[in-house]
Amino acid sequence: MADQLSAALSYLKQNQSRFLDDLKDFVSIPSISTDPNAKADMLRAAEWVADQLSRLGCQNVQILPTAGHPVVYGEILAAGAGKPTILVYGHYDVQPAEPLELWNSPPFEPTQRGENLYARGASDMKGQVVITLKAVEALMRNGGLPVNVKFMIEGEEEIGSPNLERFIADHKDLLASDFALNPDTGMIGAQVPTITYGLRGMAYFELRVSGPEQDLHSGLYGGAVHNPAQALCELIAGMHDADGRVTLPGFYDSVRPLSAEERAEMALLPMDDAFYLEQTGVPALYGEAGYTSNERVGARPTLEINGLLSGFTGEGVKTVLPARAMAKISTRLVPDQNPEQVHQQLRQYLETHAPPTVRWELIKLAGGSPSVTDIHMPGVKALYRALKDTWGVRPLYRREGGSVPVTAQMCQLLGIDSVLTGFGLPDDNLHAPNEKLHLPTFYRGIEALTRFFSLMGEG
Amino acid sequence: MADQLSAALSYLKQNQSRFLDDLKDFVSIPSISTDPNAKADMLRAAEWVADQLSRLGCQNVQILPTAGHPVVYGEILAAGAGKPTILVYGHYDVQPAEPLELWNSPPFEPTQRGENLYARGASDMKGQVVITLKAVEALMRNGGLPVNVKFMIEGEEEIGSPNLERFIADHKDLLASDFALNPDTGMIGAQVPTITYGLRGMAYFELRVSGPEQDLHSGLYGGAVHNPAQALCELIAGMHDADGRVTLPGFYDSVRPLSAEERAEMALLPMDDAFYLEQTGVPALYGEAGYTSNERVGARPTLEINGLLSGFTGEGVKTVLPARAMAKISTRLVPDQNPEQVHQQLRQYLETHAPPTVRWELIKLAGGSPSVTDIHMPGVKALYRALKDTWGVRPLYRREGGSVPVTAQMCQLLGIDSVLTGFGLPDDNLHAPNEKLHLPTFYRGIEALTRFFSLMGEG
Repeated sequence: MADQLSAALSYLKQNQSRFLDDLKDFVSIPSISTDPNAKADMLRAAEWVADQLSRLGCQNVQILPTAGHPVVYGEILAAGAGKPTILVYGHYDVQPAEPLELWNSPPFEPTQRGENLYARGASDMKGQVVITLKAVEALMRNGGLPVNVKFMIEGEEEIGSPNLERFIADHKDLLASDFALNPDTGMIGAQVPTITYGLRGMAYFELRVSGPEQDLHSGLYGGAVHNPAQALCELIAGMHDADGRVTLPGFYDSVRPLSAEERAEMALLPMDDAFYLEQTGVPALYGEAGYTSNERVGARPTLEINGLLSGFTGEGVKTVLPARAMAKISTRLVPDQNPEQVHQQLRQYLETHAPPTVRWELIKLAGGSPSVTDIHMPGVKALYRALKDTWGVRPLYRREGGSVPVTAQMCQLLGIDSVLTGFGLPDDNLHAPNEKLHLPTFYRGIEALTRFFSLMGEG
Repeated sequence: MADQLSAALSYLKQNQSRFLDDLKDFVSIPSISTDPNAKADMLRAAEWVADQLSRLGCQNVQILPTAGHPVVYGEILAAGAGKPTILVYGHYDVQPAEPLELWNSPPFEPTQRGENLYARGASDMKGQVVITLKAVEALMRNGGLPVNVKFMIEGEEEIGSPNLERFIADHKDLLASDFALNPDTGMIGAQVPTITYGLRGMAYFELRVSGPEQDLHSGLYGGAVHNPAQALCELIAGMHDADGRVTLPGFYDSVRPLSAEERAEMALLPMDDAFYLEQTGVPALYGEAGYTSNERVGARPTLEINGLLSGFTGEGVKTVLPARAMAKISTRLVPDQNPEQVHQQLRQYLETHAPPTVRWELIKLAGGSPSVTDIHMPGVKALYRALKDTWGVRPLYRREGGSVPVTAQMCQLLGIDSVLTGFGLPDDNLHAPNEKLHLPTFYRGIEALTRFFSLMGEG
């Protein structure tokens, strides 16, 4: 095994420029999933992935249809039943590139400047897909892959994966695996290899408060009726207490407490208060009493106001007493909270606190479950060692505040946990102009995943 | 005098159809002050008024320029220094007529249906201007006007009278009078003659709360920073206490308490809780504890949220943690509150209550002083008797919740109070399609003001 790995690592060194050429090919395709005019390019990108899988030596390579853009599948199962099967997740679609005038080079003409390659999708996540493909290639070309791998590369991640849950449910046998590898998260810094082991879920609502049947003159009626904008503000203000805790009844009941080990790990992360102050520009931080900012963002549930709208919002003055007011309200959830339970908790809060002077309506717009991976599972341990051997420093564990619905879907439908990693950096300009990939980190990423697959084959 | 009055009242009866023809002439002119293409029509309307004044026998009739639309002036001072001088206020401009498709007859083609004349401006306030002109005419044609009158008919009321304060300040001597008669308020019902003796002032603000330098991902930062929309809601929620009282420091300090007489008069108004519930459609009323709805609207100061805007307000879901949030906040003021004092009180509230986790900015957008007229002054007493003699029932006194800045401006610049009345009805569709004037009330209005001028001449 050690011989195979050193041969594979030599192979990586010799093939760097070809890997980069392949990446440039891939990011040249404007596979913008939200663009209705990009269907041909979406198919080109899917075919590019399928072609790479075939060249690797994948079997059963297919471009499988969904109600939207297709999913590319391929498998290498030669290691046999005695070895673990890893489901590799990725996506071949990218965000739109607008505003185009802010790009220093055209978004779909990959351009190298210094140590970076600039292109839409270079980091999110075509670069990560190529890293995975090349790690598998390195082992395939040097004795064969010592584990079983299935690839599931979708084309709708940037539009919220509307058809993926159905796809997974319809292909449970095809996708059956021991765990998933999802390289769609990132690193804290180029010298800080990172393992993400938790993601928050979400429940998103629209709250509508109404009073008068139509807008009133604030002079003629102001004082005699409860202003719906005021009533909405009063309801929202009551959703947090003085300690920054969410007051929905039972909100924290099913929150899994942070273990001492997790808190110790999170304390190692180089994101202290100064980091959050600098990143956000706020005059002072805020949050749930008793927790650090990292814990608040990654491991504690929150309630945010995403939007407010009522009455007159233009320039100048209009003395309207608005008939209605609206808020977009979302909660980020952690294990073992459940979006529908939180929906009922918010409803109960409103039933208790909404005054009889207004009417209200609550609409649930979206929901997704939180997830957390056991950091003691073999896949995480192998990834830890692979990252450590590559970077020469121990990786850090973190829980991310965002939501990656596919993780919870795989857990619910396939019964598998996800090992989350990735080699994007915080300054990669994801979803923004001048997206880039740090090439030294790209090559280290290939090395790390080569080591990971090799280690998994030993286990 | 009794002979002159009965002759004048006979004259009114004989000339009703001509009065109606004159009103139809006047409302046929589309004098929409906000329409930049209506300048010629605005001038036509001003000339129409000037022509009427000249035919009445006014002296010194002038169309006086302002930075915007001109003011029409005319005077009848033959009664001499021993008699009071009354400054009659009016406006010859009207609101736009849109949406045109909702009118049952063209807005500038006056159309009689049943007892009503339909046209833009019929009630607000060309009809009221004609009422005043014809009352003066009836006395002029039957022995002469027994009081002195000055007319000031402006052309910018519907756009907020932006040049009137300057005009008054520049023409103090010309406008010097004992009190003003402003027939731009209305009646509670066709059988309920009404004297308005108080108007609320206003102070209007925009409050901007900001936190992060730009919109953040609510997953990646939610929980670690104070959401500006939440902070704004918390600040707004604190502006009222559980008794519906405004919590700005010192807000009520200079509020003149309601006298027992005023409260008794207000209790006579036919606007009870059922009226406000029906008019507004709210599920339950709200307001400052210890006061009736009429008192809350007319005689107590209030604070209203006129608009809210923050973050994402479109269809569906966007998980943004907004960088800023904005509210339009207005206060309605009563004597002896002062808009600038209230501005400072709101600023002080924010300095005390805004948390260190956000930044805020307060912009004062508009302000106007409240006003109240002594109901024992001779002009009010004469109007009371004139209305009573015309309708056969005693008039009701009310304070209106809205603001008429000219009233406070005349008080401050000319040192005169305003006697406020008018003969529009609540269902006249002011500022709306199918504006109309109730013709029996129109003729009674002319009779009432004829009696009023006659009584003032006796005093």
